[in-house]
Amino acid sequence: MTKTDRIWTAALVVIGDEILSGRTHDRNIAQVASWLQVQGIRLMEVRVVPDVEGRIADAVNALRTAHDYLFTTGGIGPTHDDITVDAVAAALGLPVVIHPEARRILEDYYTTRGGITEARLRMARVPQGADLIPNHMSGAPGIRIGNVFLMAGVPHIAAQMLDALTGTLEGGTPLLTETIGCWGAESEVADLLREVEQAHPECQIGSYPFFREGRTGANFVIRSTSANALKSCADTLCEALAEAGHDFTPGGI
Amino acid sequence: MTKTDRIWTAALVVIGDEILSGRTHDRNIAQVASWLQVQGIRLMEVRVVPDVEGRIADAVNALRTAHDYLFTTGGIGPTHDDITVDAVAAALGLPVVIHPEARRILEDYYTTRGGITEARLRMARVPQGADLIPNHMSGAPGIRIGNVFLMAGVPHIAAQMLDALTGTLEGGTPLLTETIGCWGAESEVADLLREVEQAHPECQIGSYPFFREGRTGANFVIRSTSANALKSCADTLCEALAEAGHDFTPGGI
Repeated sequence: MTKTDRIWTAALVVIGDEILSGRTHDRNIAQVASWLQVQGIRLMEVRVVPDVEGRIADAVNALRTAHDYLFTTGGIGPTHDDITVDAVAAALGLPVVIHPEARRILEDYYTTRGGITEARLRMARVPQGADLIPNHMSGAPGIRIGNVFLMAGVPHIAAQMLDALTGTLEGGTPLLTETIGCWGAESEVADLLREVEQAHPECQIGSYPFFREGRTGANFVIRSTSANALKSCADTLCEALAEAGHDFTPGGI
Repeated sequence: MTKTDRIWTAALVVIGDEILSGRTHDRNIAQVASWLQVQGIRLMEVRVVPDVEGRIADAVNALRTAHDYLFTTGGIGPTHDDITVDAVAAALGLPVVIHPEARRILEDYYTTRGGITEARLRMARVPQGADLIPNHMSGAPGIRIGNVFLMAGVPHIAAQMLDALTGTLEGGTPLLTETIGCWGAESEVADLLREVEQAHPECQIGSYPFFREGRTGANFVIRSTSANALKSCADTLCEALAEAGHDFTPGGI
């Protein structure tokens, strides 16, 4: 396998009782997934786990060894239920220490906001040997230790941390996609889809049904690392849909 | 442990390349989570896995033995990328068969919609011994095999299947919650939160920060199976917040 053929993979652990209770709708899965696509890294698995140290540590250990990169969101704030640093340190067999640069950042940030306190200093705790991920939004940095990246749970702060990491992680050829939307029942085009996919071994086709404006339809998403294969597959699929008389829209519905 | 103290747990496997690519924002985690709360069943873990039979089967086997109930969403439609039935059957060591009642339902449903086809008949395939979960929306039923429940990926169809299951699964005492919203930095109330939680061993308090209308704040969610403990904890927290001069709102912000 040449360097460009190498597939880089990642996993995400979402830490949060608030997601598992249904109280909060997760928004980090989609934003981490979209960001990874652009970096040429494939998100292969997500686990949502409760705020329990052992459960977080187990998920981190299962996934960090199976993938090139592991991201976590949630549990790095100042309150008693923020236990991600402790859980990741336990998973890696490392002690938790105060990061001097993180302490300095927090002291600066809180100078005009009531000063540093013991609770705020919790956000300078890292597994020993960690680096920081800048956070221009709210002071408290994210944390990188080996191939594990600890990010905030608040989506717009996590987004800032992803921005700071953009271009710093090695990735492979990005997966390219073309979407073709089609009105009607998915079952009417099932044979056609399978045949087009079989004729284009460098492409996968996913079919995602929807119900909108009182009508059923589906978006067919073609994925490939080859732009040529992608175009050829999309052209073939459009021709086949036209020939069979389907009402379709290149670009998706 | 008495019957009412027994904690019933569930896990969810979300099957879908479209979630892992960031293309589609998952909506099933929150709706399954909320529904389970009402049934007195705690959602303990979610895994999002790609449309790969072995990966689905591994997740199903890891979670169905660890929890009372396992739900899956996605991959039970008529197209070639719908492989959940095959993956679950493989996980359970069962053959895939056509369910006669599912076939009858599909034949009826498609009578006025172009008739049954091989692709449509795919939606009658089940692991041997399975029961059906009614779907009044689009014909194709969900599937129950042992403690595993296979549901549609399209959120409003999954919702119909959850409706059909309402009240049919044994659960325990539902987890009750009280939310108190508070403006200001989470770090200003961290000590207070920890102390209130420690004084109420039957309750957990989660702190969920947000940034809204240009201001920071957090919602404190107290959880307990005891209504009395919950009220006592919420009262204590409100008193402590008032005493410390915080701007808070019972019910949440």
